[in-house]
Amino acid sequence: MSEILRFAIKDVEAFVVRAYESVGISAAEAKRIAELQVRADLIGADGHGVFRLPQYIRRIKGGAVNLKPDIRLAREAPAMGLVDGDNGMGHLVMRYATEKAIEKAKSAGVAWVGVQHSNHAGPASLYASMPMTHDMIGLYLAVGNANHLPPWGGIDMLLSTNPIAVAVPADKEPPIVLDMATTVAAYGKVKTKAQRGEMMPEGWMMDRQGKPLLDPKKSNEGFLLPIGGYKGYGLSMIIGLLAGTLNGAANGRDVVDFNFDSTSPTNTGHVIVAINVSMFQPVSEFKQSVDAFVRDIRNSQRLPGVDAIRLPGEGSHARLEESLRLGVPLSGPLVKALNELAGELKIAPLG
Amino acid sequence: MSEILRFAIKDVEAFVVRAYESVGISAAEAKRIAELQVRADLIGADGHGVFRLPQYIRRIKGGAVNLKPDIRLAREAPAMGLVDGDNGMGHLVMRYATEKAIEKAKSAGVAWVGVQHSNHAGPASLYASMPMTHDMIGLYLAVGNANHLPPWGGIDMLLSTNPIAVAVPADKEPPIVLDMATTVAAYGKVKTKAQRGEMMPEGWMMDRQGKPLLDPKKSNEGFLLPIGGYKGYGLSMIIGLLAGTLNGAANGRDVVDFNFDSTSPTNTGHVIVAINVSMFQPVSEFKQSVDAFVRDIRNSQRLPGVDAIRLPGEGSHARLEESLRLGVPLSGPLVKALNELAGELKIAPLG
Repeated sequence: MSEILRFAIKDVEAFVVRAYESVGISAAEAKRIAELQVRADLIGADGHGVFRLPQYIRRIKGGAVNLKPDIRLAREAPAMGLVDGDNGMGHLVMRYATEKAIEKAKSAGVAWVGVQHSNHAGPASLYASMPMTHDMIGLYLAVGNANHLPPWGGIDMLLSTNPIAVAVPADKEPPIVLDMATTVAAYGKVKTKAQRGEMMPEGWMMDRQGKPLLDPKKSNEGFLLPIGGYKGYGLSMIIGLLAGTLNGAANGRDVVDFNFDSTSPTNTGHVIVAINVSMFQPVSEFKQSVDAFVRDIRNSQRLPGVDAIRLPGEGSHARLEESLRLGVPLSGPLVKALNELAGELKIAPLG
Repeated sequence: MSEILRFAIKDVEAFVVRAYESVGISAAEAKRIAELQVRADLIGADGHGVFRLPQYIRRIKGGAVNLKPDIRLAREAPAMGLVDGDNGMGHLVMRYATEKAIEKAKSAGVAWVGVQHSNHAGPASLYASMPMTHDMIGLYLAVGNANHLPPWGGIDMLLSTNPIAVAVPADKEPPIVLDMATTVAAYGKVKTKAQRGEMMPEGWMMDRQGKPLLDPKKSNEGFLLPIGGYKGYGLSMIIGLLAGTLNGAANGRDVVDFNFDSTSPTNTGHVIVAINVSMFQPVSEFKQSVDAFVRDIRNSQRLPGVDAIRLPGEGSHARLEESLRLGVPLSGPLVKALNELAGELKIAPLG
């Protein structure tokens, strides 16, 4: 593990804002993106936070992203919407879509908003968590921005890590926030390993001969493995159909690998579902039931050698609290990369 | 593999109807249940079909199930409903809930119907597939009827195999129907193995010492393993919260093991979501896109030694076509068990 440095949240946000403003994004929108992007680092989703900034900037400079998008509801019904992101930055598009889903779920009870013509939007849990402030459960699906997963038994990479995130509010306990790729490892984790000069554990990737691939710098010579074998393959495919095909967004062969392409729009698809708890039962009762469930699980009997039973989201909640106290955790190599970017963009460095 | 016998669909349905009528279910409702229960066998979901009849009858005789339920919408909004199954047979409750979801999705675009006070309803794909006849995508979640899964790192069985099924209509191709437990194997498959006198492969179950458990007859000495380790644990928990806790249905420690309990209501929870494709794009375009996606995957390059790339639902679709031609496939031991049941119930045997 490389050295972790800590920075004040406002300093990292200001740096990200400077970077986006320097390539033509308005101050207000740059601020909105920066808040979400830095939040990814606060919750420990370090493969999806400011780590992505050089890549986003490269794609903006390459003309792949629309800096003045007209983000709008292209279709709608009482409980659904289809947002056309007009190829804007994914964070802006998804924030808009999530707000629409929350608004619709207030009266409809549940709302499902699909998104087309968007871009990479950071960690799935960011958006799944937003409905919780309205006492709603959030569910998020997305088509990943590069195909690293072949069909089960195959080697053509027609599928992506297609993540699912679900956030369920609790009362006194931290919320339950599941955020998982349908592959054993997300590709962002592979990239982080590569930047840190670490090897991957067996089971993350395989090469085209079916042998374990351990060096993350050789990740383009192999593919990710799905969770549960054919089940993860099936889940990835279904998420691709719901978040991609149904929304008229890219899926399968149409997915653009944004790691190697800096000029093409990705037509990224997402789904955000907001579920209004109060329509099902009193919110306080529900939250107390979630607390009781969490405590039953946390206090249950452990296998020998296991120090604690963990709940989904508990780790990122702890990391968020730690980061709010100590500052944004950034690795040494990442800080170096960000300051090199600052030089290119002729903006003040991070520090 | 034990011998597979074939029976005419109408004969098996008539047998199931006789069994239910003999314990007090009305002819019309017995017919509705029988159709769904036999359909499970037609699609190859043999752990969830007529195999369950002796168990269902035992629980009916034990007073665990309400034979004259008032199944109704206890709460509703334009895009949601909460069905109170009044402890009726799960197949009847879920059929009702799915019809409500389809009805609401016609105008709302998407509808999410939760279910409480239900019972085991057979394979998840039965209900996920129903919206397809209305050009809708179906998504089904349920809390399993026995806890066989401990938290990740634990040994207290606080979670169930909580299945998810999603059915996506195609044009010329068979629909994509994913139906998976969040455990490596569903418990129904363990029971089928036990009845057939077969051993389980390694990876399905573990004993309380963390060692592989291979004998399905000893299944109560161990627990099922989640797909993808902590990810499957997280998915199972989330499904339990959405299908159980949110609906005021059993989840966690409240789940009744219906394999060993023939007198207690289970308060089984389910969720059915209907997604109206026409709200997103013209249905024919969508179905053609699904076909193209399916063909890309099926025709993609294979690993050495792999004879075909399979799509979720393709196997059960093929089994359905075969069963419609050859009859309902039932194993020798199952036929014996059904005819023993006929003796107990004093009804004409299956044959």
